[in-house]
Amino acid sequence: MKKVILTGERPTGPLHIGHYFGSLINRVKLQNEYETFIMSADMQALTDNFENPKKIQDNVFETILDNLAVGIDPKKSTLFIQSQIPELTELFNYYLNLVTVSRLERNPTIKTEIAQKGFEESVPAGFLCYPVSQTADITAFKAEVVPVGDDQLPILEQANEIVRRFNRIYKTDCLKECQAYLSNVTRLVGTDGNAKMSKSLGNTIYIKDTPDVIKQKVMSMYTDPNHIKVEDPGKVEGNTVFTYLDIFDTNKNELGELKNQYKKGGLGDVKLKRRLVDLIIAKLEPFQKVRNEYSNNMDEVYKIVKIGNEKARNIASQTLKEVREAIGLNYFDK
Amino acid sequence: MKKVILTGERPTGPLHIGHYFGSLINRVKLQNEYETFIMSADMQALTDNFENPKKIQDNVFETILDNLAVGIDPKKSTLFIQSQIPELTELFNYYLNLVTVSRLERNPTIKTEIAQKGFEESVPAGFLCYPVSQTADITAFKAEVVPVGDDQLPILEQANEIVRRFNRIYKTDCLKECQAYLSNVTRLVGTDGNAKMSKSLGNTIYIKDTPDVIKQKVMSMYTDPNHIKVEDPGKVEGNTVFTYLDIFDTNKNELGELKNQYKKGGLGDVKLKRRLVDLIIAKLEPFQKVRNEYSNNMDEVYKIVKIGNEKARNIASQTLKEVREAIGLNYFDK
Repeated sequence: MKKVILTGERPTGPLHIGHYFGSLINRVKLQNEYETFIMSADMQALTDNFENPKKIQDNVFETILDNLAVGIDPKKSTLFIQSQIPELTELFNYYLNLVTVSRLERNPTIKTEIAQKGFEESVPAGFLCYPVSQTADITAFKAEVVPVGDDQLPILEQANEIVRRFNRIYKTDCLKECQAYLSNVTRLVGTDGNAKMSKSLGNTIYIKDTPDVIKQKVMSMYTDPNHIKVEDPGKVEGNTVFTYLDIFDTNKNELGELKNQYKKGGLGDVKLKRRLVDLIIAKLEPFQKVRNEYSNNMDEVYKIVKIGNEKARNIASQTLKEVREAIGLNYFDK
Repeated sequence: MKKVILTGERPTGPLHIGHYFGSLINRVKLQNEYETFIMSADMQALTDNFENPKKIQDNVFETILDNLAVGIDPKKSTLFIQSQIPELTELFNYYLNLVTVSRLERNPTIKTEIAQKGFEESVPAGFLCYPVSQTADITAFKAEVVPVGDDQLPILEQANEIVRRFNRIYKTDCLKECQAYLSNVTRLVGTDGNAKMSKSLGNTIYIKDTPDVIKQKVMSMYTDPNHIKVEDPGKVEGNTVFTYLDIFDTNKNELGELKNQYKKGGLGDVKLKRRLVDLIIAKLEPFQKVRNEYSNNMDEVYKIVKIGNEKARNIASQTLKEVREAIGLNYFDK
């Protein structure tokens, strides 16, 4: 029997090429080896976007389309939406008793995020508790493997702590511990050279971006600020265009020659950027073809997600039943 | 249309005469004036009894029987069990985003309870958040009135804060603010004279206590420690037996005479206690008759609660539907 993997994302914006190289590319491979569940974490997204629910609404199906675009196969993967699986909220409720407030406050991932988001003294309780909600997500599907970045490891530690505590207190083995799937992911810098590509920094290239948009974004990329005239020698290291070419250009010989030429001088940024534009468009073109097919047939997408929701609910219901039995809340079906 | 009232208790032990004079006596009256929902708060009880779920299991139907015993009429009141209404956990989840951790930590009721329970640095997250869970309970049934002691007022303030914030952020009026129903309740001291009657102090007389048990408990009551011989003059104030007689003895003339006699000397504790024993037995006898009828016919009790659960679920589902629509999570039924 295949092991279960749970993955997904917060639907706070369309997915970009940073997501693609950082996780989607792996996800597409993993669906062949694992029983794959892909969750659109809309409720989790609400924990720090509760004042802007429209952002979540607008992006749930956008991100699902992005998943389908890059090669997620609904026959292999179960695509579902967190808020459509109410069993998760009940599990969350029981798990909340098994973790202390101070333990949640010491979680390094959460501490960092609280600082980043500038919550200061106004941390929403839902946000502080989201690792417990993630524990519900993971355990509901008995996921044994969860792909994460190493900054997310404390979340899985927290989940496994709750699992062990639950199983011990309620004398059961119905919950499973999970393992992190850490892969050598490529962290793609933003088009402005910033270490992080993110919607809020406006330095993204979306999977769905049209050729015109891609061209405009690449053409405005920074290169080497001292490379002013074509004949000036230029730097390759830290040059965003070359960072991107390293990822998109499969012709490593030609790319090596271009680098040499750039360093010596005599290669203009515009020529380089055109090359990159063509490569990105070529890479995204097959994704966008699939994406367009789906987005022109949203009934099919709704059907895929409804089937996914139903499958996810069935499994989560079964886990919830075991959890309720272990606690002893099955008053009527003894 | 009758206003909705939500009340109930944590099923952590059978109900005693302190509960009767403190709340049940009112509850029985209120069911004639209000659309009454009585919740067995088993999930709330788990927040500080999660390591002892058996205690909750054992007492859910005990406390429901106690309610029926004292005159709760299933035709007038909806009796239901919190954990059987999963919609409450989903509401709880959404409301958690609308309150900050520091706001929860400042709640005076919770602060006092945390100190009383000796949680210190190990406050379970579920416990800190239980006022948010209560907000879910109250709003799910659109309760306008909640009977509470004045020590519980901060919980209702918290609930109304969440209601206002939800309605403002999500541009809706689907949630209703509630009012406290503060009544002049009689706080019955324990059989040991302690201000609080509680199971953990072992100073209770349960509604279901048999005549023998009542006799044994009353006979071991403290009176006036200086009233040793029958002919000694004794104190009436602070004398637990008289405190109880003030409540149970409807013949105020005779009671007045007994007090005078006691003060002068010449009235023995045993005679007094026998009078009290008879009065308590007489008071509880009709309750116990009803209780026995129900407990000999548990199928009927299960039926009452199943009907109550179903009614409660229908109403909570409707509220949840409105809440989900307001947030915008109704992706499929637009």
